[in-house]
Amino acid sequence: MLVIALQYKENENSWIGLLAGKLNRGLCVIDSYKLLKEGKELTDDEFFLACALGWCIEWLQAYFRVLDDITDNIPEDAVKRRGQPCWFKQPKVGLIAANDGTILHNHITRILKKHFREKPYYVDLLDLFNEMEFQTASGKMTDLITSTHVGERDLSTKFSLPLHLRIVQYYKTTYHSPYLSVACALLMSGENLENHISVKNILVEMGIYFQVQDEYTDCFGAPEVVGKGVVAEYESENYGKLVKSIEAHPSKAVQAVLKSFLTKVCNGHE
Amino acid sequence: MLVIALQYKENENSWIGLLAGKLNRGLCVIDSYKLLKEGKELTDDEFFLACALGWCIEWLQAYFRVLDDITDNIPEDAVKRRGQPCWFKQPKVGLIAANDGTILHNHITRILKKHFREKPYYVDLLDLFNEMEFQTASGKMTDLITSTHVGERDLSTKFSLPLHLRIVQYYKTTYHSPYLSVACALLMSGENLENHISVKNILVEMGIYFQVQDEYTDCFGAPEVVGKGVVAEYESENYGKLVKSIEAHPSKAVQAVLKSFLTKVCNGHE
Repeated sequence: MLVIALQYKENENSWIGLLAGKLNRGLCVIDSYKLLKEGKELTDDEFFLACALGWCIEWLQAYFRVLDDITDNIPEDAVKRRGQPCWFKQPKVGLIAANDGTILHNHITRILKKHFREKPYYVDLLDLFNEMEFQTASGKMTDLITSTHVGERDLSTKFSLPLHLRIVQYYKTTYHSPYLSVACALLMSGENLENHISVKNILVEMGIYFQVQDEYTDCFGAPEVVGKGVVAEYESENYGKLVKSIEAHPSKAVQAVLKSFLTKVCNGHE
Repeated sequence: MLVIALQYKENENSWIGLLAGKLNRGLCVIDSYKLLKEGKELTDDEFFLACALGWCIEWLQAYFRVLDDITDNIPEDAVKRRGQPCWFKQPKVGLIAANDGTILHNHITRILKKHFREKPYYVDLLDLFNEMEFQTASGKMTDLITSTHVGERDLSTKFSLPLHLRIVQYYKTTYHSPYLSVACALLMSGENLENHISVKNILVEMGIYFQVQDEYTDCFGAPEVVGKGVVAEYESENYGKLVKSIEAHPSKAVQAVLKSFLTKVCNGHE
């Protein structure tokens, strides 16, 4: 239970594994919002609100992390999450972690209600987080259906490249992409997300680009060691396309946000 | 997984255990809304919307039911949910039920967005369901903290009557009470829930009344067999209080809704 998590952390000075990593997704809200303000200083209030949205994103990730570990039911002796057992394998936790997941999820709606209830974009924030949750859970389900969880792995009937692409688009890139951070920053700037479908599409394309690099490395080894092979051709073609799509966006500020992510994803290319 | 649930149901004609019971909570939305309309006929559209909200309540219950069974981690050979194994003990399901829980939860937000997005009370519906989720999960956590899950049962330090009352108020009566159904009907009628705090309080009091009867029966046997003992005094005192609170409500239509539940809860008393 979460109460125990706090005691556990305090007594044993142990990393509790719920908020893994460098909180990059959360920090991206502040960075993106700054770029959208085109150099104007953030007020204290704006900074606070951007941080609050950043925390909502981190809690969403923590929620999925806790449930994912249960869903994947990793073996008793496995260690995960930076060398620590995952949450439901912690001493004194176990499967009640499922309820902790719901508590983590509630953090999002509590923070949003407390700090954004009076904002004109409050309802859009709720819709956005609900949509992200739906896409992530649907992608995860598709992933599970085509995995080896039930019966033999059957690539001929269960698995196809278009299906894999769908999993990447809906699950991996939603979960790992900065779209949610950018969308939060856009809403804070008073933008209507329906006018920014292209932003989402470009970030999904970037996600696929990243995933191709990642899977190539997993299969064949790091490009620096084994050479880039076919992936070089893919990269060069798609990097150009991404730059073109970004530059077609009417707002220079949004272009700056997208380019900041392109630089990170396409590290080394240009 | 849910896809398997449908196949499973189709192939083996087996009850899948996700939507247990008689869907009473869902149906209560329609009944309450009818009473709030004071005898006026429901339009097809109103009937449809009341049904849609009823389904949202049933999905919320299904979501908590799936997670609860995981949290309680009932033994392998136990049967639950009307003689059937619970969801995560179904063949071919297992702990991926945790993701199914999220999918069930998504049903609520998808239905609300599809059918209520343009209604002035859309944001209040989202807040209401989020609040119910928070209260149920917090109550469940309090229940788990004071249960025997970790270590020995320790009634002297972990458990107290005020704490038990809090569990009943926040968890058992939220989860089992008709408040959510009534609140949905009130919102559909254009009411502001902040003007109806007393409705919630009365329904919580009714929930406690029901819980006292229930726990008395669990401890000492059915009142018809062992006699009513002290519970008779409690009932008589509190039934009177409930009637008085209901009759103090300014709206006759809301009084009718509350009385319809009082009749069910206080079955046999008057």
